[in-house]
Amino acid sequence: MQSLLLQQSHDFPFEKIAAIDLGSNSFHMVVAQVTHGQLRITGQFGDKVQLAAGLQSDDRLDDASQQRGLDCLAQFAQVIDDLPPGAVRIVGTNALRAAKNRYDFILKAMDVISHPVEIIAGREEARLIYVGVSKTMDHGDQKRLVVDIGGGSTEFIIGRALDPILTESLHMGCVSFRQRFFADGTITKSNFQKAVTAARLELLSIQEDYLDEQWDVSIGSSGTIKAAFNIIKENGWGKKGITPKTLKQLQKELIAAGHADNIDLVGLKPERKSTFAAGLAILTAVFECFEIEQMDFSTGALREGVLYDMMGRYAESDIRERTVNYFVNQYHVDLEQVKLVTQTALSALSQVSNAWQLNNLSSEDMLRWAGLLHEVGIGISHSRYHKHGAYIIGESDMPGFSQQEQQALANLVLRHRRKFTQSLEFKFTKRDQQDLDRLAILLRLSHLLHEDRKEGDIPIFNLVAKDKTLHAEFLEGWLEGRPLTVANLQREADYLSSAGYKLTFS
Amino acid sequence: MQSLLLQQSHDFPFEKIAAIDLGSNSFHMVVAQVTHGQLRITGQFGDKVQLAAGLQSDDRLDDASQQRGLDCLAQFAQVIDDLPPGAVRIVGTNALRAAKNRYDFILKAMDVISHPVEIIAGREEARLIYVGVSKTMDHGDQKRLVVDIGGGSTEFIIGRALDPILTESLHMGCVSFRQRFFADGTITKSNFQKAVTAARLELLSIQEDYLDEQWDVSIGSSGTIKAAFNIIKENGWGKKGITPKTLKQLQKELIAAGHADNIDLVGLKPERKSTFAAGLAILTAVFECFEIEQMDFSTGALREGVLYDMMGRYAESDIRERTVNYFVNQYHVDLEQVKLVTQTALSALSQVSNAWQLNNLSSEDMLRWAGLLHEVGIGISHSRYHKHGAYIIGESDMPGFSQQEQQALANLVLRHRRKFTQSLEFKFTKRDQQDLDRLAILLRLSHLLHEDRKEGDIPIFNLVAKDKTLHAEFLEGWLEGRPLTVANLQREADYLSSAGYKLTFS
Repeated sequence: MQSLLLQQSHDFPFEKIAAIDLGSNSFHMVVAQVTHGQLRITGQFGDKVQLAAGLQSDDRLDDASQQRGLDCLAQFAQVIDDLPPGAVRIVGTNALRAAKNRYDFILKAMDVISHPVEIIAGREEARLIYVGVSKTMDHGDQKRLVVDIGGGSTEFIIGRALDPILTESLHMGCVSFRQRFFADGTITKSNFQKAVTAARLELLSIQEDYLDEQWDVSIGSSGTIKAAFNIIKENGWGKKGITPKTLKQLQKELIAAGHADNIDLVGLKPERKSTFAAGLAILTAVFECFEIEQMDFSTGALREGVLYDMMGRYAESDIRERTVNYFVNQYHVDLEQVKLVTQTALSALSQVSNAWQLNNLSSEDMLRWAGLLHEVGIGISHSRYHKHGAYIIGESDMPGFSQQEQQALANLVLRHRRKFTQSLEFKFTKRDQQDLDRLAILLRLSHLLHEDRKEGDIPIFNLVAKDKTLHAEFLEGWLEGRPLTVANLQREADYLSSAGYKLTFS
Repeated sequence: MQSLLLQQSHDFPFEKIAAIDLGSNSFHMVVAQVTHGQLRITGQFGDKVQLAAGLQSDDRLDDASQQRGLDCLAQFAQVIDDLPPGAVRIVGTNALRAAKNRYDFILKAMDVISHPVEIIAGREEARLIYVGVSKTMDHGDQKRLVVDIGGGSTEFIIGRALDPILTESLHMGCVSFRQRFFADGTITKSNFQKAVTAARLELLSIQEDYLDEQWDVSIGSSGTIKAAFNIIKENGWGKKGITPKTLKQLQKELIAAGHADNIDLVGLKPERKSTFAAGLAILTAVFECFEIEQMDFSTGALREGVLYDMMGRYAESDIRERTVNYFVNQYHVDLEQVKLVTQTALSALSQVSNAWQLNNLSSEDMLRWAGLLHEVGIGISHSRYHKHGAYIIGESDMPGFSQQEQQALANLVLRHRRKFTQSLEFKFTKRDQQDLDRLAILLRLSHLLHEDRKEGDIPIFNLVAKDKTLHAEFLEGWLEGRPLTVANLQREADYLSSAGYKLTFS
């Protein structure tokens, strides 16, 4: 088992930092506290400034859009004007890159907010997005393609772990495409297809290099992709997130609506309606050009990347271990107890992993993390603590974990005791659900064997698994002095039988 | 504002203690950790031993019931056999009081569990129940009647704060009454009425003394009352908990079912079915004799009383303050910030309390606690932290608070930002809901004024309230340097208008 010690923080000079992203569609600010080298978001602010919409034909920002930007910055300033130089980083992206009068705007902005405003290049934007994603999701050694569709530009990064390999930024975004193809709000098959074709033309310039480099997983960030992901999830269209099939369905819904104002989809925020068709056309082109089968969503992107970049520390090993350690400390978990439960669960896994087809690294990791986290809910209340733990794990920011992984852990923690058949709303594929059922059975077994909370009392048993049956044979005499354990095992056999599993023991 | 410092713990010699209650219906064990003078439940165990059912006509426990009891104790022993003498207290109640061969059983029990078993008198049982209730709920200076319907006896206590005034125990309980009136499971109007009459006869002996002493609130504990409370709540039969009307409805449902096995009510556990009619008949008699209009439920009773009695510290002031302090520490709340928000909210309250009829002590307490607690959810995630905070407050054990109070606090915390109209499942009376709406508006106002998290920045304003309108007049010039606050106030006016409130400011 890996060490449970929390890594020490570097000497970072600020307790509070902020990142501001002057995007083409919206301005956003995120404020965070830095404690023991760990970022903790304490404020999130945003305003739909629509700077790109104010870009005139002479490539100058008009007065109205500048004023909207300055008003928004004045609001942000009220929150951070006491932060020292260096604790705030403000980055401007595509609309400011494109605006000829950008320095006029910057001078006015610095009057309002008294921190330097940087305009970053597309490549740097891509790098920072990758930092944000890589601090938020962990894919081990797998190569990933990251796509971020902004208001005025779209970034493409291929990277592995914390290192970007290819970074590109293309001049197309959901605001500029809306103005080109959906200016009056109407959505038809024809103008949607035109937008897709235009995006494919833009993609031609990078398509070959990216296909040559190849990748294992693809990740999207930013508002368009978040909206697509949420709509698919909340309407139950599919269990695999964004796929060519669910993209098609989204497209059909938009064309059926006929106009941005008429889109009525659960999971879509009102302020996203006007740019969604344009964003979706770009996303469709990306899927087609890069032959993507499935895309995950990452909550971390540019702003998070800027924060982590400021901290200059993005060179550790698996962030997920760090996160689990943090939770174990945060919720005052009884470390001896959860280590015992985890150890026994892993030893059980090693005995049945072949028979139950759980012989992969990720099963072992999931079981280990679920074991370490299974008691986090006790901080809320001992009554129904499995339920509280699942709530905490499902709802928390857990750097390094994907949504899917968090929900899987929440599922294991929810089911580590009491009814085996209860389940969260989140739906897994049939295969994933079977793996989770089996991991849950191992965690339950370990939990019940250690319910007496005796340190150093390691149960010795042989497990034989076969499809839907599990037989546990304990060291002779071991069960005799443990009537609670025997009663627990009997009750457990009842619980499992309701799910078609047969548990026997001797 | 009261001090926020946590009281120091006494020098209590045990880190872990346990209380076992050998009841007539079930045996229960609760294990707790003692940290900083605070009890934290780490294990709850129970088994439906049905000792009273084994009491023969010669008042001796038969072998089978003794064996069920010993088997259960052996399970408990596995958990606590490493606890030193003095850290476990085991109390036997009515069935053991009644059994002639009780000392035979005790000797066998002590072989199994190696801690002394005490048989406590009905009065002592009543006193300990009162300790448990008074550590779990706070009613200030109000006199309370506490009723605990057990398997073999029912306890009645009148007390104020931590001091019991009258304590009584009567020989009737849901197990003994089941055997007398519902032995074959059949429930008819006739046998239910016979059981009520029998209970009224028992009550005659104490009725006069108790009615003379009088009380302000009545509280029930134990399984029967918990079940009644849950059924009424989960079926949405009424907002006031147990009342003569909802009792009547329960009775009708049971008679309509006709047999214990046929009872099918959301909120009723299967193992409670067989004794529920008998317990309800006793409760009905109690309501009738004592002319009770409404009864609250307390989760704390005998076992909790035994634990607190062991700690010998049940003589502090308002437990609720202690609980709030504990939460503020536990969830690493930014103390400066929540104090600011609380202070401003209380100053707002003082200005509108007459116009909005919030001029009672409990409004002030609720607003102050909600203010101190409104950020507890940030520990889970800054996104939707109001929702996480409401979950924590709604689901936690909060010594001193009634369910109703916890739900009210959760409601205030949930609504301290974002949509004003969202609500928890818990339903309040129309009047309570109006008070909560207005307190929520004050908390929202204070939260938005302090969203920039500036220490020492106290907004100075006059508030004028009138039914559904609120006007805030700020010190001249104060709003000018605060564009975020202005934007917040404008947005807030929109939020409130959806609930029919009109907010203006200048």
